[in-house]
Amino acid sequence: MCDRKYAIIGTGALGGFYGAKLQQAGLDVHFLLNSDYEHVSQHGLIVESKDGDFTLPQVNAYNDVTKMPQCDVVIIALKTIQNYLLSKLLPPVIKNNGVVLVLQNGLDIEPEIAQIVSNVNIIGGLCFLCSNKVGQGHIRHLDYGQIVLGEYILNYEAVGITNRIQQIANDFQNAGIAIELTEDLLLARWKKLVWNIPYNGLSVILNARTDELMADSYTRQLVEQLMYEVAAGAKSTGRIIADSFIQTMLDYTVKMKPYRTSMKIDYDEHRSLEVEAIIGNPLRKAQNAGVFLPQISCLYNQLKFLDNRNKH
Amino acid sequence: MCDRKYAIIGTGALGGFYGAKLQQAGLDVHFLLNSDYEHVSQHGLIVESKDGDFTLPQVNAYNDVTKMPQCDVVIIALKTIQNYLLSKLLPPVIKNNGVVLVLQNGLDIEPEIAQIVSNVNIIGGLCFLCSNKVGQGHIRHLDYGQIVLGEYILNYEAVGITNRIQQIANDFQNAGIAIELTEDLLLARWKKLVWNIPYNGLSVILNARTDELMADSYTRQLVEQLMYEVAAGAKSTGRIIADSFIQTMLDYTVKMKPYRTSMKIDYDEHRSLEVEAIIGNPLRKAQNAGVFLPQISCLYNQLKFLDNRNKH
Repeated sequence: MCDRKYAIIGTGALGGFYGAKLQQAGLDVHFLLNSDYEHVSQHGLIVESKDGDFTLPQVNAYNDVTKMPQCDVVIIALKTIQNYLLSKLLPPVIKNNGVVLVLQNGLDIEPEIAQIVSNVNIIGGLCFLCSNKVGQGHIRHLDYGQIVLGEYILNYEAVGITNRIQQIANDFQNAGIAIELTEDLLLARWKKLVWNIPYNGLSVILNARTDELMADSYTRQLVEQLMYEVAAGAKSTGRIIADSFIQTMLDYTVKMKPYRTSMKIDYDEHRSLEVEAIIGNPLRKAQNAGVFLPQISCLYNQLKFLDNRNKH
Repeated sequence: MCDRKYAIIGTGALGGFYGAKLQQAGLDVHFLLNSDYEHVSQHGLIVESKDGDFTLPQVNAYNDVTKMPQCDVVIIALKTIQNYLLSKLLPPVIKNNGVVLVLQNGLDIEPEIAQIVSNVNIIGGLCFLCSNKVGQGHIRHLDYGQIVLGEYILNYEAVGITNRIQQIANDFQNAGIAIELTEDLLLARWKKLVWNIPYNGLSVILNARTDELMADSYTRQLVEQLMYEVAAGAKSTGRIIADSFIQTMLDYTVKMKPYRTSMKIDYDEHRSLEVEAIIGNPLRKAQNAGVFLPQISCLYNQLKFLDNRNKH
């Protein structure tokens, strides 16, 4: 397994960054591209990074998944709104018994993957990454970059740390990417939602940056109430998020540089919003456990309205 | 009591309209003005109305409440955001044992009035009026105009129909204004909030007209959930709003002409929003009865943020 082949499904700000880092570290990486295919085939990838710039003049670029080799690890780095494509994209590129690594936000993506491909192992990853695509095949990495990885099994039951996940973590760490392993992927996903739901949602609805939301006492309170609703959602699925974690997230955001969330960037660019993965799925998961999350539901309906109007 | 003197505190689209109608019907009306004082002193009032245009070349105009005669009926027609002025405006102009008629939206204005003046009778009125001020002393009445009147006593206890309220109703009816009398002012106020809270709130937050909110299935659902929360608020104070009333409001709004709410007009004109009277007070009233209204709370915090930013 020293020659693990990696596929990157979605070579954007996130997939392009991690894929380039893995190739730079000597791994065999295969990139699926769409609009940037021609350019990257000829010119490769450029990464400007706070950890050091580098270029990859030659990369394995594809615009057709059937031309890709079957890979040991297939990294899903699309926006979740494109996940409807996975039933076509994923089967040709994943080895039997290979690993699908889902580097996406939100909840309940892994069960969808499990419906598409069987006889694979699914790992979920939560990326704390601040990067942008600033041109064709040109990525600017601004801050952070660490990933929390956790193995997925049916119903998000907590599992131990397998050799498999440890090997993948080693590949990433050798490429200079900080990795934290978790035995409980579902808890890790809920914890990330504690931040993502209030700030992504309100930044779009109120046209506001994180610092503006925290400076106003009313939205500061609303953010906190939304965080407690996320914790109630987690609890409905048997996962406990401590009050102190919520306070830490609030304090952390106050200290952050003013930040425009990824959902706000998508909205401003008139791209579809990841409302279902980040807000709809958690809401339904709690609802299925008999718990209604009213303020998150309010955000959900507001965002669906705005997302729909924004695409016209 | 044939010579009941009326004072109009706030001669805008609403106070100017009803005051002009009363004077046109032969009553003795005294108008308090602010920015339009000079113009109205010299030129009077113009009313363009779907029920017939008319002008009042001469009206009793004042810009100082201490120069006004003491009146039998003092009509409060300010926006509620100016109610902090009432402790100065009201005492000089109200007769002992006179009537303060509160023609404002929202909840819990009457108890504030009772704190300011004692030995008066307070009547609350809910206006279903569509009118605009289109110039100095110039009012355009577009549609509707009926008022629901109910007597206020301590804690909004329901009272019967007194002679007092019947006489005032007669004055209005003689002036061509449709009046409905209610024995339960608090219930009437909650019922009006069933419409006002969702549509006023969401029109500002989502920059949308009523027809847009009803055409989208997500906001249509949110409106309905908010209406049910208003009913839960009413119930916390012992007032029952039937599900059928909510369905009637939804159907009625679908059939209405596309409508920009009064709160949205205020927002677009960078005026302060009536958030406290329409949303904050009902929220606190339910909270005091031990009932939290989460989706209305979400709207409240969002509106406070937007209102605050909009005034800068």
